[in-house]
Amino acid sequence: MLKLKNYLKDEEQRISDHLKKEILTLDPVVQPMVEHTLSAGGKRIRPFLTVLFGKLFGYTDPAVYSLASAVEFIHSATLIHDDIIDAADTRRGSPAAHLVFGAPQALLAGDVLLSAAMLLALRLNNYKVMECCATAVARTAAGQLEETQNLRNPYLPFEDYLHIITGKTAYLISCACESGAILAGASVEHCAAAAEFGLQIGIVFQLVDDALDIAPESEIGKPSGGDLREGKFTPLLHFYLQALQAREATNFAAKFAAGTLDEAELAAALADMRRLGCDARTRALADRHLTLAEAALERLPAGTERDLLAKVAAYVRTRKL
Amino acid sequence: MLKLKNYLKDEEQRISDHLKKEILTLDPVVQPMVEHTLSAGGKRIRPFLTVLFGKLFGYTDPAVYSLASAVEFIHSATLIHDDIIDAADTRRGSPAAHLVFGAPQALLAGDVLLSAAMLLALRLNNYKVMECCATAVARTAAGQLEETQNLRNPYLPFEDYLHIITGKTAYLISCACESGAILAGASVEHCAAAAEFGLQIGIVFQLVDDALDIAPESEIGKPSGGDLREGKFTPLLHFYLQALQAREATNFAAKFAAGTLDEAELAAALADMRRLGCDARTRALADRHLTLAEAALERLPAGTERDLLAKVAAYVRTRKL
Repeated sequence: MLKLKNYLKDEEQRISDHLKKEILTLDPVVQPMVEHTLSAGGKRIRPFLTVLFGKLFGYTDPAVYSLASAVEFIHSATLIHDDIIDAADTRRGSPAAHLVFGAPQALLAGDVLLSAAMLLALRLNNYKVMECCATAVARTAAGQLEETQNLRNPYLPFEDYLHIITGKTAYLISCACESGAILAGASVEHCAAAAEFGLQIGIVFQLVDDALDIAPESEIGKPSGGDLREGKFTPLLHFYLQALQAREATNFAAKFAAGTLDEAELAAALADMRRLGCDARTRALADRHLTLAEAALERLPAGTERDLLAKVAAYVRTRKL
Repeated sequence: MLKLKNYLKDEEQRISDHLKKEILTLDPVVQPMVEHTLSAGGKRIRPFLTVLFGKLFGYTDPAVYSLASAVEFIHSATLIHDDIIDAADTRRGSPAAHLVFGAPQALLAGDVLLSAAMLLALRLNNYKVMECCATAVARTAAGQLEETQNLRNPYLPFEDYLHIITGKTAYLISCACESGAILAGASVEHCAAAAEFGLQIGIVFQLVDDALDIAPESEIGKPSGGDLREGKFTPLLHFYLQALQAREATNFAAKFAAGTLDEAELAAALADMRRLGCDARTRALADRHLTLAEAALERLPAGTERDLLAKVAAYVRTRKL
């Protein structure tokens, strides 16, 4: 694991430096907002994957950092818009951009970032890279939209849930991987394997994110139960409703649907969910997708980068934050 | 003028048909919102300009309608986001998308539209067209953002005002013209003239829009004085403050800045502005930019399309709605 950490640390610095450089090319009016959002940290996992997939196919041109920056810009834009939609107070412990700068400003800064990402990707002069990035934006927004349309449905079919998380989370991670491979000139088969790997670890990422929602605030740095509060269906809710007596389940589902769960009911439900292992069962679902990610990895050239990608996949599954 | 109307009518149908076709390729979840926004009408002036500039340079491939659709998608996305920001109730007489579908849904539909526009432009396989469109998105959002940052400033320097309206309105109209010329393979000089023509009529368009803000509701189909209410600086406000006695001006400016003008004060100010000809003086400013647009037109090949473009420019200046 140490090797991944070292590799990550070096790359993180390069990615960070490049991002800073790219921020300076943006319209001065949006720079503070983008800096605020990016400085809130985050694991830079998407740009890291882009760089890693570039290197996996022997691509050493620094242009890969421009692509990595484009991917991170898209991610930041979706976070900014998402926080407006969810009326979120904080993002990774810092106040959300819309609270610091105002919702109209944040909304527009998101638009600027999306177009800046397109321009960055465009400058790589690679049609398929550009298509990959623009498609990822469309799918991510459509996924977020689908989630919004299906809020407060305690009985969302699992297929719909999977479709939503694939849209809102997995496609952009898939794009991070695939676009790096495309830029490096990988074969169609290798690009497809890169896309599949990203898609599957993207689903793992979101399932683990859902599981982490019931971890204590002391561990995750934000109040537990955000998804329950916001009315977002997760597998945890599904497992919880399954475990309850029919009458209790109907009652809880009705309150979830109406958004009338009070803090005491939420706290009790979170404690029950932990006791019942709803998070562990969600992580077990994640394991299936981890296996699919590992299978995709097998179709990629062996070597240092592939070993590191396996470690990234394992990290996404085991992360505590 | 009849000729422009006939030409417009034919093209409007083709543009409309193509737009409908493109909407069907979008994620089903956003189609109703996009349909709602586009069916609210509008003059389709941007896509019309794109088609006209294509034809001016002999481009007859139907791909120009894809580009025209991309331009209109960008325009629709900015309107949807703008209405959320302004908390607007209506758009061209119809209820605004965010009120019909919800603000989160509308915000995300705007993002989907922006990326759909990028994908449409991308498929034309022309780097410069794509760059033109992506840059227009970035500049339009930055212009809207700059306006938001400068709300309720009754003494906004005119230079800043011009910068803002160029950003929020003129660049996309410029892109509509320039991208049509680029797609048609026009020379660098001709493309620059197309961009300049669009930029100048874009400024005319916004100045006339500002002037129309004090026209009676019966004429414009929405309450007069929207800009004053929303705290948007316009040349009308500038001329009005100039015409008032120093004490009155200070008082009015302070209330404009604080957003505390009541309906009686607004109505009185609007009547005064009409009486003082603040709108006519704003239209006189527009004339200067119309002259610049006409000069740009002179640098373009003579013929039917150039004659029509001159008529479009004249229409943008004289329009009553």
